[in-house]
Amino acid sequence: MTTFTSSVFRTETMTVPGGTETILRGGRDLFPLLPQSLHGVRRIGVLGWGPQGRAQAQNLRDSLAGTDVTVSVGLRPGSASADDARKLGFTEDDGTLGDWLAVAAASDLVILLIADAALAAEHERIFAVLKPGATIGLSHGFLLGHLKASGGDFPAGHPVIAVCPKGMGDSVRRLYEQGATVNGAGINASIAVHADPDGHATDRALAWSVGLGSPYTFATTLENEYKSDIVGERAILLGAVHGLVEALYRHFRLDGADPVTAYERSTESITGPIARTISAAGLPAVRAALTDDDRDLFDRAYTAAYGPAREIVAEIYDEVADGTELRSVILAEDRLASRPMSRIGGSPMWSYGAEVHARRGTTPAAIDPLTAGLFVATMVAQVDEFADRGHPWSEIVNESIIEAVDSLLPYMHARDVAYMVDNCSRTARLGTRRWGPRFQASYEQIALPSLDTPADQTLIASFLSNPTHDALTEAAKLRPSVDISVS
Amino acid sequence: MTTFTSSVFRTETMTVPGGTETILRGGRDLFPLLPQSLHGVRRIGVLGWGPQGRAQAQNLRDSLAGTDVTVSVGLRPGSASADDARKLGFTEDDGTLGDWLAVAAASDLVILLIADAALAAEHERIFAVLKPGATIGLSHGFLLGHLKASGGDFPAGHPVIAVCPKGMGDSVRRLYEQGATVNGAGINASIAVHADPDGHATDRALAWSVGLGSPYTFATTLENEYKSDIVGERAILLGAVHGLVEALYRHFRLDGADPVTAYERSTESITGPIARTISAAGLPAVRAALTDDDRDLFDRAYTAAYGPAREIVAEIYDEVADGTELRSVILAEDRLASRPMSRIGGSPMWSYGAEVHARRGTTPAAIDPLTAGLFVATMVAQVDEFADRGHPWSEIVNESIIEAVDSLLPYMHARDVAYMVDNCSRTARLGTRRWGPRFQASYEQIALPSLDTPADQTLIASFLSNPTHDALTEAAKLRPSVDISVS
Repeated sequence: MTTFTSSVFRTETMTVPGGTETILRGGRDLFPLLPQSLHGVRRIGVLGWGPQGRAQAQNLRDSLAGTDVTVSVGLRPGSASADDARKLGFTEDDGTLGDWLAVAAASDLVILLIADAALAAEHERIFAVLKPGATIGLSHGFLLGHLKASGGDFPAGHPVIAVCPKGMGDSVRRLYEQGATVNGAGINASIAVHADPDGHATDRALAWSVGLGSPYTFATTLENEYKSDIVGERAILLGAVHGLVEALYRHFRLDGADPVTAYERSTESITGPIARTISAAGLPAVRAALTDDDRDLFDRAYTAAYGPAREIVAEIYDEVADGTELRSVILAEDRLASRPMSRIGGSPMWSYGAEVHARRGTTPAAIDPLTAGLFVATMVAQVDEFADRGHPWSEIVNESIIEAVDSLLPYMHARDVAYMVDNCSRTARLGTRRWGPRFQASYEQIALPSLDTPADQTLIASFLSNPTHDALTEAAKLRPSVDISVS
Repeated sequence: MTTFTSSVFRTETMTVPGGTETILRGGRDLFPLLPQSLHGVRRIGVLGWGPQGRAQAQNLRDSLAGTDVTVSVGLRPGSASADDARKLGFTEDDGTLGDWLAVAAASDLVILLIADAALAAEHERIFAVLKPGATIGLSHGFLLGHLKASGGDFPAGHPVIAVCPKGMGDSVRRLYEQGATVNGAGINASIAVHADPDGHATDRALAWSVGLGSPYTFATTLENEYKSDIVGERAILLGAVHGLVEALYRHFRLDGADPVTAYERSTESITGPIARTISAAGLPAVRAALTDDDRDLFDRAYTAAYGPAREIVAEIYDEVADGTELRSVILAEDRLASRPMSRIGGSPMWSYGAEVHARRGTTPAAIDPLTAGLFVATMVAQVDEFADRGHPWSEIVNESIIEAVDSLLPYMHARDVAYMVDNCSRTARLGTRRWGPRFQASYEQIALPSLDTPADQTLIASFLSNPTHDALTEAAKLRPSVDISVS
């Protein structure tokens, strides 16, 4: 489902390898069309105040300001988030903050942004209070996976739609704010229409996406969204990058580098110049920026890492598609009821973050060729696995490349790995803890010991001609390059 | 089910914390009783020639020599193992080597030692050719887990028994050979009776266990066996120890140790003096052997590692009990049909094995206090998790302690980590690759950075008074201490 039509917005056709996809370019000039495109939705209820709930509730409220559409936030009784919501303008007094079930019962579009495990446990209570014909909104496909695994289903007669921003909640809000002065800033989103009993589901999803500030919106299925989202965060977006920098830091240290230099050559190189180069000029530009000697090391690192990384991505994909990964999340949430989630930022490297940040500007930010080869190989491994499994190209480049270089890595650059990981969904946080170490071990035990093997020129040629470069170029035309400013 | 009766053998009662368990002491003097105890079984078919199949077929044949019970090996058409089986005396000419389904059809006891994934795929074909009333034999409970998950069942009218040696196949054979001159040498085994239509299932299981050379046999259920076996190999037996030495080697190297010293303080310390001390004198003896300063470091390491290790053991237990771990094995086998299993011995440390081995005898083998604290904490974490989940004490100490120090670690001491891991079942090999990195990351990111925190004296006191020490002492009385001689 990469084509769709709208009765309100003018869609465009994007050229992708092997065909085309329908997309909608966003923009503040479209905000006046939102009420019409929402087709009767006058109350939007956002349930949950995690990073996505917090960002989406604010963006939708601001985009719909001055219209007759109200955005309310629904929280569980005694929620610790109520104060923050009030501080940001959602209050019981004006009816924009309330009990989650009351808000669900009063809304025409109910956006479910509570934690996945809570959604798994509580969705039936929410479904039971919905108005007839109210639209159910999701921001990723976890609930579909859970319903499939548990033999449940969405309630009949309700439109079911998803709008899935390809970035962490903080960046969804931050880039929307920047978008007030820099038109086009924002996080791309996919939409999926899972049930459309009244024929207006697509328009409502498009309105929601435009209201969030998505520079461009593309279509997928809830099933494809679910798989690429859960796999992506476990692989290049969070898990793999965490495992990679843990492995590289120790590698550089054992190779004689001092801690600050080892940090700079691993984490700093990825979150800074490598991410910026990919964002501005694509993947081959990283390799092209190197000297001949460095390029040979990049090629050897790419050769050493592509196979092992692809193997783990395939393993994750199988487990996500099969439902076992989702089971493990539910099991983990049961254990976490009685103990906190383990720390993720305790490695020695992270204690040097302040020193590294202080040196910025005094030393040139350099692309480390070894780091770049391993990172790019892993990113392409994910791209290739997604392409082989039949995902739309917009989904592939957004979920594998754009979300990394334009949303997550800039936050890791400004803060640290724990901030980046732990401001994503609990499902993502658990997945990072689960799969990051697998990538680390694979780099340490397989890729890094093979660096002396000559580069596989066929593999490098196939990298340079990978169709994802064209897809990324097309996507870049739709999303003006805006450096996110992380406060 | 920790009590059982035999119409042939004289069982004994073993005192364990909180009660007693029935056990059977083995010995070559019991071999003449085997035919009687097999109750009508005159042909035993061993299907598969992995490490367990290879060891069990030989041990049973040798123990039953001179009786009218024949042991045959059944292999799949074109099996690469046929030559090795012939070399060890199983031949088509005398009817002791044949096609797996033909051997299954001709046997009164069919021991299923093919790989787990093959068993999952092919068990129905095997069940279909069984003689009426033939006994189905397993050496661990994987198939039960698979049948439960897939809605299948064992065929009615057949006894279903398990005999589960608590050691890798190579040691089951090697200690049996040593047992010819050192009475009592062997690997302990558990038995489980899952179906007993003719009332002789327990006797048959005991005959099989005694025939393998088990110094003592204890009883459990197939379900408890399955869970403790799969969890144990993923935790202290293989996965955790691999993750631990990978973490420690890098830790010592970064702390300034040369590669050989770092190897000695990590791997060599565990596989040599720590394993030998536990085998001879139990877990507290490791701590008691240290100087005061070293004991404080041991205590701090124990304190830092116990919680994080317990958390991962609990996670593994949940996933095994839930069936998700088994699903992941099946999914992995599907992928492995088209590519080999990843290497496990590629880390820099293992290239120094020869140098370390060459130094043996020239430097005193020392218990490194940091290594010992982390290792013992992880072992106790597994013991405590198993005890909390209600496993019999014989199962706990055999699956958590004896199998490690008397079977697996001596092999790792003689060879290397890849040999130890890759001579276990494919399910174990996959589990090690899956969970070892989780332990490594946990030691690196949580335990090792916390070493400066003072020891938790309550936790140490609870370690010193842990009931497992009494259980291990009782088990040691039944199993004379014999150092395995690995050629």
